[in-house]
Amino acid sequence: MSEDLLEDLLAGDHRALARAITKIENRESGYRELVSALHQHTGSADVIGVTGSPGAGKSTLVDKLAAAYRERGLTVGIIAIDPASPFTGGAVLGDRIRMASNVGDMDVFVRSMSARGSLGGLSTATSDAVKALDAFGKDKIVIETVGAGQNEIDVVKAADTVAVLVPPGSGDDVQMLKAGILEIGDLFVVNKADLDGADRTVQQLREMLEYGRDAGPTPTGHHGAEALAGQADGAGTAEPDPDRWRPPIVETVATREEGLGALLDALADHQAYLDESSEREARERTRYAEEVRTLLREDLSELLEEEIERHGGLDRFVERIEARETDPYTVADELLEPLVDCVEHRRG
Amino acid sequence: MSEDLLEDLLAGDHRALARAITKIENRESGYRELVSALHQHTGSADVIGVTGSPGAGKSTLVDKLAAAYRERGLTVGIIAIDPASPFTGGAVLGDRIRMASNVGDMDVFVRSMSARGSLGGLSTATSDAVKALDAFGKDKIVIETVGAGQNEIDVVKAADTVAVLVPPGSGDDVQMLKAGILEIGDLFVVNKADLDGADRTVQQLREMLEYGRDAGPTPTGHHGAEALAGQADGAGTAEPDPDRWRPPIVETVATREEGLGALLDALADHQAYLDESSEREARERTRYAEEVRTLLREDLSELLEEEIERHGGLDRFVERIEARETDPYTVADELLEPLVDCVEHRRG
Repeated sequence: MSEDLLEDLLAGDHRALARAITKIENRESGYRELVSALHQHTGSADVIGVTGSPGAGKSTLVDKLAAAYRERGLTVGIIAIDPASPFTGGAVLGDRIRMASNVGDMDVFVRSMSARGSLGGLSTATSDAVKALDAFGKDKIVIETVGAGQNEIDVVKAADTVAVLVPPGSGDDVQMLKAGILEIGDLFVVNKADLDGADRTVQQLREMLEYGRDAGPTPTGHHGAEALAGQADGAGTAEPDPDRWRPPIVETVATREEGLGALLDALADHQAYLDESSEREARERTRYAEEVRTLLREDLSELLEEEIERHGGLDRFVERIEARETDPYTVADELLEPLVDCVEHRRG
Repeated sequence: MSEDLLEDLLAGDHRALARAITKIENRESGYRELVSALHQHTGSADVIGVTGSPGAGKSTLVDKLAAAYRERGLTVGIIAIDPASPFTGGAVLGDRIRMASNVGDMDVFVRSMSARGSLGGLSTATSDAVKALDAFGKDKIVIETVGAGQNEIDVVKAADTVAVLVPPGSGDDVQMLKAGILEIGDLFVVNKADLDGADRTVQQLREMLEYGRDAGPTPTGHHGAEALAGQADGAGTAEPDPDRWRPPIVETVATREEGLGALLDALADHQAYLDESSEREARERTRYAEEVRTLLREDLSELLEEEIERHGGLDRFVERIEARETDPYTVADELLEPLVDCVEHRRG
């Protein structure tokens, strides 16, 4: 069954692709084997992450971007991430298919995914879905997030190139810095550039990027100082940068398709930079290590919940903590002791 | 040594309190035993969380709040949380003592803490530090966060009462909803209420709270529908609410100390509500269960890193993933298999 699904997907069946992503998202039986098998067919797509605060016009921009790639004969897969609020519980959008300019064109495959499990569940599901689209043969894969919180940052880390959208005059600048958004942007897009305050936003961004580059330490696996070449441009306009990648700022008005060409160029520049420097491999390695760690954490977490179940749940322990007969650390030690013993015994 | 520290802390020695919190923050040897021992001396402080977007004037408001409590003869401990950007790596502020109106008054004990470990490290350190202040005998403990991201939300969950600060005319409303901030607020403070747009912000907040209450499911352990009494007021002005807690909106101008009285009343109302309903116990139970789970996760994570070390790190595996000889799921299975076998064998 799962092998049929894999074969159909690899043969270019869009319905198999849709079913595979559903399987991945819902963690249906056999999804691990499926993703394992998909992995060896991956590695040919460019993965672009698009993030930024709500209201920056991400959906419109992503739709126009997809259309532009289609016009150039490339196939596109879009994963729209919708992390439900952790406090309202559960998914909101489900399998919404966005009503956009691309609907009907099956070479733009749009899928919404929402946060289900905690603890990295969404970022695992996203990178697994990217693998399905990559193995399927999509040329460009776009991961689009709704907000710009920590969840979204984790999610777009699955991309080769991260575009951060900034609405003009948003006053969000300081907040962006806080959220670590500045550090993950390979390029910045000031969308709605026809609005008041756009120039000021571009100026502020430029200053922050200068400051961040001169002041801060280099984040792991990003903007590596060891990069040998930068911004070598397919169009041949940019001089090679002997230093490292300097995130460009692109101004767009997505609704009117203004600045789209510049955005495509900037994305192509970054992809070229990744190929010519050692950055692509470095990022891939960082990403795979992160994927393994996340999977291990998720699996251990399950093991843990089973242990808690085996003890009849936490209620009994919580009551004793409330009564000050014990405390959280002692309870954690009690629950883990057998596991630790097990491991230590095995290590001899 | 650690027992001396505990005794000195319980005897009211501020230097012992400072050393205990340093020990907790840096996870120095013996911190687990210390926190375990502190637990039975806790339970008498009111813990207030103050969160909200940057620029809302949190520090000023917290300082004024502390001064107001001091005037009423109460002792105050403040923990200012400064989660460093996950991408710039490590702590920024260290043990900054804020230069504020309260400096020199040792009955207002101010401590800054920053994010060190990932995966819940900060929320554990915060609730542990709260225990130190509580056991020490502080009447009011304020947890103040810098931003309003997921980290900060996790952190203020250690509080009995959460005050969410909203700057007027910020346009942050939609974003607040997304971040789940609305759901955790027991009361809302529109600070800088003398600025343009304050009335509109209050109005928007009111509408969102109405909407959220009517439309959304009740979040776990918050605003429990089973609450029997609400807003019973020390000043005797409010009618008992037979339904449940309705988060009030307080307008303040912290710099001029305007609205401080109303804020103190609202905080007292909520504390009274917690005592008269079953909410205080419900929240405490939720919190303790969460603390145990977080500790288990942290401990398992350590166990995991040891396992990875034992295999000589992840690099070897990552290389094979890159070469498409294996994939992240298969590697995770390989690494976990012995542990799972061990646990299953023990379970018989």
